[in-house]
Amino acid sequence: MSFTLQAIAERLGGVLDGDGGLVITGVSGLQDARPGDLSFVTDARYEKLIEETRASALLVGKEFGACRLPVIRCAQPEIALEVLAECFRPARAEPSGQVDAAAQVAASARLGAAVTVMPFAFVGDAAEIGDRSVLFPGVYVGAHAAIGADCVLHPNVVVLDRVRIGARVVIHAGSVLGADGFGYRPVPEGLCKIEHIGTVEVEDDVEIGACVAIDRARFGRTLIGRGAKIDNLVQVAHNVRVGRGTAIAAQTGVSGSTTIGDACMIGGQAGIVGHIRIGDRTLVAARAGVSKDVKEGSILYGYHARQHLDKKREDAALRRLPKLLERVRELEARVRALEAARKADGESPAD
Amino acid sequence: MSFTLQAIAERLGGVLDGDGGLVITGVSGLQDARPGDLSFVTDARYEKLIEETRASALLVGKEFGACRLPVIRCAQPEIALEVLAECFRPARAEPSGQVDAAAQVAASARLGAAVTVMPFAFVGDAAEIGDRSVLFPGVYVGAHAAIGADCVLHPNVVVLDRVRIGARVVIHAGSVLGADGFGYRPVPEGLCKIEHIGTVEVEDDVEIGACVAIDRARFGRTLIGRGAKIDNLVQVAHNVRVGRGTAIAAQTGVSGSTTIGDACMIGGQAGIVGHIRIGDRTLVAARAGVSKDVKEGSILYGYHARQHLDKKREDAALRRLPKLLERVRELEARVRALEAARKADGESPAD
Amino acid sequence: MSFTLQAIAERLGGVLDGDGGLVITGVSGLQDARPGDLSFVTDARYEKLIEETRASALLVGKEFGACRLPVIRCAQPEIALEVLAECFRPARAEPSGQVDAAAQVAASARLGAAVTVMPFAFVGDAAEIGDRSVLFPGVYVGAHAAIGADCVLHPNVVVLDRVRIGARVVIHAGSVLGADGFGYRPVPEGLCKIEHIGTVEVEDDVEIGACVAIDRARFGRTLIGRGAKIDNLVQVAHNVRVGRGTAIAAQTGVSGSTTIGDACMIGGQAGIVGHIRIGDRTLVAARAGVSKDVKEGSILYGYHARQHLDKKREDAALRRLPKLLERVRELEARVRALEAARKADGESPAD
Repeated sequence: MSFTLQAIAERLGGVLDGDGGLVITGVSGLQDARPGDLSFVTDARYEKLIEETRASALLVGKEFGACRLPVIRCAQPEIALEVLAECFRPARAEPSGQVDAAAQVAASARLGAAVTVMPFAFVGDAAEIGDRSVLFPGVYVGAHAAIGADCVLHPNVVVLDRVRIGARVVIHAGSVLGADGFGYRPVPEGLCKIEHIGTVEVEDDVEIGACVAIDRARFGRTLIGRGAKIDNLVQVAHNVRVGRGTAIAAQTGVSGSTTIGDACMIGGQAGIVGHIRIGDRTLVAARAGVSKDVKEGSILYGYHARQHLDKKREDAALRRLPKLLERVRELEARVRALEAARKADGESPAD
Repeated sequence: MSFTLQAIAERLGGVLDGDGGLVITGVSGLQDARPGDLSFVTDARYEKLIEETRASALLVGKEFGACRLPVIRCAQPEIALEVLAECFRPARAEPSGQVDAAAQVAASARLGAAVTVMPFAFVGDAAEIGDRSVLFPGVYVGAHAAIGADCVLHPNVVVLDRVRIGARVVIHAGSVLGADGFGYRPVPEGLCKIEHIGTVEVEDDVEIGACVAIDRARFGRTLIGRGAKIDNLVQVAHNVRVGRGTAIAAQTGVSGSTTIGDACMIGGQAGIVGHIRIGDRTLVAARAGVSKDVKEGSILYGYHARQHLDKKREDAALRRLPKLLERVRELEARVRALEAARKADGESPAD
Repeated sequence: MSFTLQAIAERLGGVLDGDGGLVITGVSGLQDARPGDLSFVTDARYEKLIEETRASALLVGKEFGACRLPVIRCAQPEIALEVLAECFRPARAEPSGQVDAAAQVAASARLGAAVTVMPFAFVGDAAEIGDRSVLFPGVYVGAHAAIGADCVLHPNVVVLDRVRIGARVVIHAGSVLGADGFGYRPVPEGLCKIEHIGTVEVEDDVEIGACVAIDRARFGRTLIGRGAKIDNLVQVAHNVRVGRGTAIAAQTGVSGSTTIGDACMIGGQAGIVGHIRIGDRTLVAARAGVSKDVKEGSILYGYHARQHLDKKREDAALRRLPKLLERVRELEARVRALEAARKADGESPAD
């Protein structure tokens, strides 16, 4: 793939400053770029890398200053980057729209039109796969599970019995939907398994990362709302509800029966206890621990997550703590001196 | 599946208050319930949801008050729920008890009676699989590994060479038992791999979640004790011992050579350093970090986990810290004033 | 396998103290050892286990004292252990060097000499696999991906399209390289996927644990430097660079576009935010949270990771906080008393 810089500037609706005849053959970050690459500066932190980059040209914002390299100035460089990604996206093989001879599909399964089932994928009894959906090698779809239209299940994804997946859902490799919830009752002999007869339901337009675990409900369903996005290695326990358009970053865990509202942003490695309710549009910082109900629009962070401002104040105080100890020690000495002096006054009648 | 409310009340040994002829077709939480469902209130937190539920009837505790819906009152609603789960459990296909033609089982492997090996499962040289055990698609059992009787290995589970699994063990999808421990010696050229020639041993009645990693020992074995329960995405490093009947919640990590006692409860996202010993019946809170030996019966929580009560006290103090800073600042001013006054007294001979 | 103690002592270059004719049949830790086993004491913490061990002999350091068991004294017991591991390593089957009939390799893929592709492994269009590399069952290698020579991809590893892997790379079971980075743009309708057209590049001599997720770059590449070692369940986001010889322990997460230097040691469950730069030879403690650029040679720990010594000081202060509150309360009372006395002095003209 190659385009002239002029052609790219036109495609992006940007203003070209430099040689429009330059031939661009790829897109890359400043550090990795090679001659022929168009690179980009969308974050001031990276400006210092411009000196060393081997890129042939740069995509920059409107207000970007002069530069030793040809630049394309765009009002919205982030969106221009998306257009660039489309231009330079490597061709992908079209799905075959067929069931490979080395796949195993139960006779009672119902497949829509142009479904692709690749080798070593398995589709169980009475499962349904919607039109044009693609099952990569090693995918397992359990009995009575239902996958909507235009879904992509990447290699080795496991969708267990009776799990329901909407349309246009993408699940990355190695994720598991519908394993039993983690529940045991203590009995004299040890731990007795609590049966989980519910299921998982994933609404339309959800994307789920790699190596994610979403457990089935005890009764009813664990629910991933329409348009939610879940990153790699996330744990979603039984009976959790993730709201519509909510994003959960990598390695976060959500314990059983918790409800997360719509349009929330949950950072990476956060932990959310069970049986709570997080209001819509809440922001949970990376690594925050949330243990109580949270009203909509909250901003939480910290090991014991609290509202952003309280926590900031406390953290600032914490950093002054060693000094505070010294100040108190000094105060004690001074008060002691004052008391001693006072006592001395009393004892030696100065007056 | 459907039962009259009367039949269910009898089955649960509960007291019916309402129309016993009502036909119940499912069980669900208050929020998800549809007409025909029996729902349940086992936690006072959820009582406020009763007004809005579409459930047709409720399972409640003995002391539960009046209600707009028919109710079944039970002395132990949690156990009644287990009985309900059994009544309404969807039928599961019986395992075939056979090796599928699309599976691959080494000629030297020894399979017990009625073992089910599903398509694309692989059983290595001299591996043993006990009676009635089920290997789902994509399961890998390495050479000389041994799986006991009545085990279930869900799709894409990997049990590597020489790993030993007891009877009635369930391993959920995507988990890996017996990868090499993470050990390297620094040498001038970089990091030199430390060989791990030991194995993993899992005793009877263990359940292991999805996407769990349990590494093999350097020498000897990593041991998961009888009846232990391990949740999704947990890391168990080389040479760890998990005690009998111990439960470990999701995303927790246990570093190398640590011993966890019997009947412990470890919360989610906890971290336990290597080479320590945690006594029996210890409770470790979610997200706690444990870095020292702990005697039996301990209750630990916090980023630097300490005994529960100490930690509670410290956390309470922490919340007062910003205020404390102000108090000390004020004290300093007052002491300064006292000192100045005193000095003035000394200088201007008032007497 | 069995050797006399004498033979082992010679092989290890150690000094034998005891019956050289003793036959040793295995190596094990003190707790697990059985008669016939050689055990070892390389850490003083474990000395107390010697009394109870059933081992027949011990490998110890030069300075180790008298002992009830035969011992071999070695100057470098850690290295002697490596030699022992080699002696007692169970035989492993040689890879077949062939493509199994139950594997699926695209006609356009290029395989080097003596490549082993086991059953149910899949190699996509135009993929390359280097000489002598081994693909275990369930491995997926995407289109145009390239694997170097002498690599081992354990069962169910997924290497997606265009990912490039160097020579002598080991990837443990269930890991996923090249899933899309987690990036969305908020738009009025919800979250719009940001395309990730870059790739992952893994240099020579890297080892990657089980259930690891390494995402592909938006543009360019996510890079794992030569000789880096990554433990189980680690998350490496899009466009991250991990330096040469750097080790990252289990369950750590590295957010997008961060650069980690060479020869760093990152503990388990650490979290590193996006877009920062961690200098060479930095040590990050287990569970530390790193949110800022860090210069080379740093030692970081804590929830808000800071330099080791500052943090130690702050933690010590934190433990005194409850007591500090009491001291301030007491100081306040004493200052109040002093002020009252002073006021009384002023009111009752004592002079």
